[in-house]
Amino acid sequence: MLSKTYTKYIQGLHNKKHRDKHGSFIAEGSKVVMDLLKSQKIVCETLLGNAAWLKDNESQVRRYFPGELHAIEDYELEKISALSTPNQVLGVFKKLKPALIQVKNKIILALDTIQDPGNLGTIISIADWFGLTAIVCSETCADLYNPKVMQSTMGSIGRVDVLYQNLPEWLEKNKEMPVYAASLDGKNVNELGMVTEAIIIIGNESKGISDEVMQMAHERITIPKIGDAESLNAAVAAGIILSHITTPRL
Amino acid sequence: MLSKTYTKYIQGLHNKKHRDKHGSFIAEGSKVVMDLLKSQKIVCETLLGNAAWLKDNESQVRRYFPGELHAIEDYELEKISALSTPNQVLGVFKKLKPALIQVKNKIILALDTIQDPGNLGTIISIADWFGLTAIVCSETCADLYNPKVMQSTMGSIGRVDVLYQNLPEWLEKNKEMPVYAASLDGKNVNELGMVTEAIIIIGNESKGISDEVMQMAHERITIPKIGDAESLNAAVAAGIILSHITTPRL
Repeated sequence: MLSKTYTKYIQGLHNKKHRDKHGSFIAEGSKVVMDLLKSQKIVCETLLGNAAWLKDNESQVRRYFPGELHAIEDYELEKISALSTPNQVLGVFKKLKPALIQVKNKIILALDTIQDPGNLGTIISIADWFGLTAIVCSETCADLYNPKVMQSTMGSIGRVDVLYQNLPEWLEKNKEMPVYAASLDGKNVNELGMVTEAIIIIGNESKGISDEVMQMAHERITIPKIGDAESLNAAVAAGIILSHITTPRL
Repeated sequence: MLSKTYTKYIQGLHNKKHRDKHGSFIAEGSKVVMDLLKSQKIVCETLLGNAAWLKDNESQVRRYFPGELHAIEDYELEKISALSTPNQVLGVFKKLKPALIQVKNKIILALDTIQDPGNLGTIISIADWFGLTAIVCSETCADLYNPKVMQSTMGSIGRVDVLYQNLPEWLEKNKEMPVYAASLDGKNVNELGMVTEAIIIIGNESKGISDEVMQMAHERITIPKIGDAESLNAAVAAGIILSHITTPRL
C-alpha cells in the first residue's frame, strides 16, 4: 500500500513548483513509461503499476529498469494520477539536466510561448520525425515535464534536447544563424528550398510571435492559405515548415 | 435563473446520444460562439453568458442573433459546462443536416477512425486553411458535435462540410476519384506534385488505416522520416500532405 507521504509526494509532482523542487516528474500509461525506460537517457525513480500491468510487463521492464517496482491498487492509481482516466502504470522519473545545444549546421526550433502542453509534446515528436535534435523554448512555454506534454511526445523526449531560455537573449547570442519566423505573411515556405542550418521561430497559439522576438528574425516565412481559416495550429505549422525545408526538392 | 429541466437538457448535450436525440449541441467560449453565430450556416437556439460577457458582447451578438440571450451566474455556467475551466458563455446550437458532397474536381479528406476530438477539430481547420470544402468521416470517428471538437475547429465548421459515412462503401461509390492513403511507406508526398482532384485517407492515431479501407486506395503516400519518431500526429500528417499537393511547385 502507498504511504500517505509518498501519495502526497506524487500528487505534488502534478505541479511545476514541486517538479522543480524535487527534480522529478511523473509519466503515465504503458507506452509513455516504456518509451522513457528504453530511452537510456532518463532515469526512473519508481514504477507503480496495477497487478494486470505488472503481470504483462514485468519481464520486459526488467530489461531496462532494475529499481523499485510497486504493485498498487486501481483506487491508489486514481489518487496519484494526473489524468481524468488513469492508466495502469505511473512512473516517477528524474528530470534531465539542461542540455548544451549545438546550433552550427543544425535546424533548431525556437518556440515563443507555446502554452498548450499537447502542442509542445506534438512539436517535440515532429522535431524527432524530421531529425532535429534540439528545441529552444521561451521561459513562457508549457513545462516540458507537465504530464500532458509527456503524453504527447510519443517517446521522442529521449532523442530531442529541450532547453528553456530567455528567447531574445538566446537569439542575440546565435545571430550568425539564419533565423526564420513563421508568420501569416512573408516568403512562401515552398520557395525556401532545402535548408541545413537555421533557427525557425514558432509563435504562440493565438498571439503569434511577440514583437521582441520577431525583431530578431532575419526573414518571415509563411504557409500559403487557400481557404478562409484564421490560423493554423502551431504544431501543424511547425510540421509543414520542417517537411518543406528538410526534404530535397524532387 | 436556469430551471432544473433546462440545466439537465444542456448537461445531456455533453453526450452524443442526447445530441442526436435533440438535434442540438453546445459550444463554449467567446471565440467559438461568435464564430458559429457569424457562420450564417449554423442556427443558434439560446445563448447563456455571464454579466461581464453580455456587457462586452451584447451589441455585437445582436448583429447576428435575434434569439434568446440569458444572463446566468458563474456557478450556473459551471454546472452546464463540459470544460474543466468553464468559459464566460455557452451557446446551444442546432446540428446541421448532413451535407451533400461534391467530389468531382475537389480534394476531399477521408478520415478513418480519428478518435481524438482535438485532432478532428484541428483537421477541419487545416482543411479550411487549404481551401477544402468537405471531409468524409468513418462512423468510428469522434462526433463532430463533441464540445472539444468545436473548441479546436477555430470557426472552420461553418466552411467545411463534414459527412459521416461507411467509409469502404463511400470509397467504392467514388472509385473513379484518385484515392491516396497516408501511410508509413509509399510514394514520397514531395513527388506527387500539385493535385486538384483526390481523396486523401488519413488513419487512426495509433492503428493507422484499417485493412478494409486501405484496400480501396490506389496509391500509398508517405512523409519522409529523417529521425526516429515512431509516428506523426494525424492532424500534422494531414497538414503536411495538403501543403505539398495544393501549392504549385515554385
